[in-house]
Amino acid sequence: MEKRVAVLPGDGIGPEVIESAVKVLEVIGRRFEHTFEMNYGAIGGTAIDTCNNPLPEETVALCEASDAVLLGAVGGPKWDQNPSALRPEKGLLAIRKHFDLFANLRPVKAVPSLLHASPLKEKVAKNVDMLIVRELTGGLYFGEPSRHTEKSAVDTLVYTREEIERIVEKSFELARLRKSKVASVDKANVLESSKLWREVVEEKKKAYPDIEVEHMLVDSTAMKLITNPGAFDVIVTENMFGDILSDEASVITGSLGVLPSASIRADGFGLYEPVHGSAPEIAGLGLANPAAAILSAAMMLRYSFGMNEEAAVIEEAVNTVFEDGFFTADLVEPGKRVLSTKEWTEKVIDEI
Amino acid sequence: MEKRVAVLPGDGIGPEVIESAVKVLEVIGRRFEHTFEMNYGAIGGTAIDTCNNPLPEETVALCEASDAVLLGAVGGPKWDQNPSALRPEKGLLAIRKHFDLFANLRPVKAVPSLLHASPLKEKVAKNVDMLIVRELTGGLYFGEPSRHTEKSAVDTLVYTREEIERIVEKSFELARLRKSKVASVDKANVLESSKLWREVVEEKKKAYPDIEVEHMLVDSTAMKLITNPGAFDVIVTENMFGDILSDEASVITGSLGVLPSASIRADGFGLYEPVHGSAPEIAGLGLANPAAAILSAAMMLRYSFGMNEEAAVIEEAVNTVFEDGFFTADLVEPGKRVLSTKEWTEKVIDEI
Ligand SMILES: CC(C)[C@H](C(=O)O)[C@@H](O)C(=O)O
Ligand SMILES: CC(C)[C@H](C(=O)O)[C@@H](O)C(=O)O
Repeated sequence: MEKRVAVLPGDGIGPEVIESAVKVLEVIGRRFEHTFEMNYGAIGGTAIDTCNNPLPEETVALCEASDAVLLGAVGGPKWDQNPSALRPEKGLLAIRKHFDLFANLRPVKAVPSLLHASPLKEKVAKNVDMLIVRELTGGLYFGEPSRHTEKSAVDTLVYTREEIERIVEKSFELARLRKSKVASVDKANVLESSKLWREVVEEKKKAYPDIEVEHMLVDSTAMKLITNPGAFDVIVTENMFGDILSDEASVITGSLGVLPSASIRADGFGLYEPVHGSAPEIAGLGLANPAAAILSAAMMLRYSFGMNEEAAVIEEAVNTVFEDGFFTADLVEPGKRVLSTKEWTEKVIDEI
Repeated sequence: MEKRVAVLPGDGIGPEVIESAVKVLEVIGRRFEHTFEMNYGAIGGTAIDTCNNPLPEETVALCEASDAVLLGAVGGPKWDQNPSALRPEKGLLAIRKHFDLFANLRPVKAVPSLLHASPLKEKVAKNVDMLIVRELTGGLYFGEPSRHTEKSAVDTLVYTREEIERIVEKSFELARLRKSKVASVDKANVLESSKLWREVVEEKKKAYPDIEVEHMLVDSTAMKLITNPGAFDVIVTENMFGDILSDEASVITGSLGVLPSASIRADGFGLYEPVHGSAPEIAGLGLANPAAAILSAAMMLRYSFGMNEEAAVIEEAVNTVFEDGFFTADLVEPGKRVLSTKEWTEKVIDEI
């Protein structure tokens, strides 16, 4: 197959980890006889510096001409004092909205060889294997009015039935490929938008009798993610709750540095990026963990290109390297040898 | 002193744990020569059953004629299918709004003898000692419009500058009695209300040069509450973020069953209640842990009645009972003896 990938390295450690992911994609391409045509574009702080726009038109055009987008990370203190429109994360929000990337998928799975880095007791963290499905283009993030004066401020949490339907359906479809359990998270005891959300879930589940559906409140979910995270399979929720809960979930297994994410559109086009941030304090030092970026590339193969076997090969290679005891600085245990970003990537490539 | 307390036992285990708290208050009254006049009222499901109203007018009148309110818990499956206006939690929301209880205080402190029950590794949980200050009468909980049709839904996140000012000031005042560190939590990279929030914090902190103020994003905060909860002193945030983060924080030390809360008004009037819910599945069995209710009564003495010494006596008694190894069913370790709600309360009374 021939696929075009828009590569947006972004800021901080973004370029380093993306370099690793690109290398891995090239190796996969050779082994499975695919051609990945990679074209680079600017986003975030780097794009502000060069084009005065966190999402330049050229980048949009590049993505439109591609089959998927691979992104590093955006942001950094350099741009923190910028006005709203010139902040790196605006690029991220704009690309999500422009390409209608309504479904954000964040798998969190315990890796036995990384549990030492988990803040949770091993018995609590060890069975974690969940997929958080976050609505990404609606709710408080994009609702109008959204403005403030000196005296007061307003944001608007708005959802249409269609917006809820498509994300709920997506979560049911994804649950079918897993343990067929969905926890739909809302705040239906307070919010009207959550009541509509719950109605839609009740309606949609009729067409999915094989899926076990549970409604949970966002506050109880925030607790259960710590007390019994192994009980979750798929979690589906709206944009803001998903932002908070997926970040909470990302640290429970000690493997934040290795978590990938996908943000996809109905037709399979998608944007793939590590969950971790741009970590400007360690940028350029070869300390970054490229696992999340590499696994994001694997998600791209699976969800946008239908290359399930290729994705599995990458995931297994990453797992084996961890099991063999090779770690970058973020995960290494005292006294063990630290591998650089490049060295660790070479280990993965050797496995493939 | 003579103080009138409105006692609202509520649903589930509410009445049992409130009975314990009332007994403790009586003992404190005798020892320190105070008269606590306790008058009982209905709220939540019980009030729906008897008065068809989760917050009957008689209860409002009772609270108005009192110096503080002590509440058990509300809710249960019996009322889960009720229409919105006849749900137990509506009573809670209504009493908060009616009495302008804008500041919700939730202390979370690691108790060494309870750390075995924590889902977090002991080294992560052991230094936790934070106070979450949640805005309780604004934001998405009460903003208009808030409605849904079959086709769409809207909720409104609205804050006035005054609403933000008073909660931020409250958090600064409270921080002065602790380690003088405040983390102000918002989502200023996305929400306009958070931008105003941040502006107010920046403005107010000028009058509190002794307070170390930090801005944090809600998603990073959800992570740090797990990875490094010991780093927090006071956290101040808006209503919905506070709901999620305070529930998250409530489980990190393993002591959810022992956490109290206060919801207070500018003049010191307040409502005091355990953080835990009504736990209908164990109601009436003598299994409930009364510690949170007893500690809520202590908070009442401190914050509404200015009885700091009396509050400290209760808190020390509770701590000693834990240290002596006496636990109710929720906290006991395998093989140890379980005390009933009443037996455990007697231990605390003996200590006082
Ligand atoms: C950078 C920020 C706008 C973004 C969000 O809130 O969606 C980030 O936290 C994320 O989760 O991808
Ligand atoms: C019962 C519910 C309305 C309430 C809230 O969301 O405020 C509860 O979760 C709380 O935190 O006291």
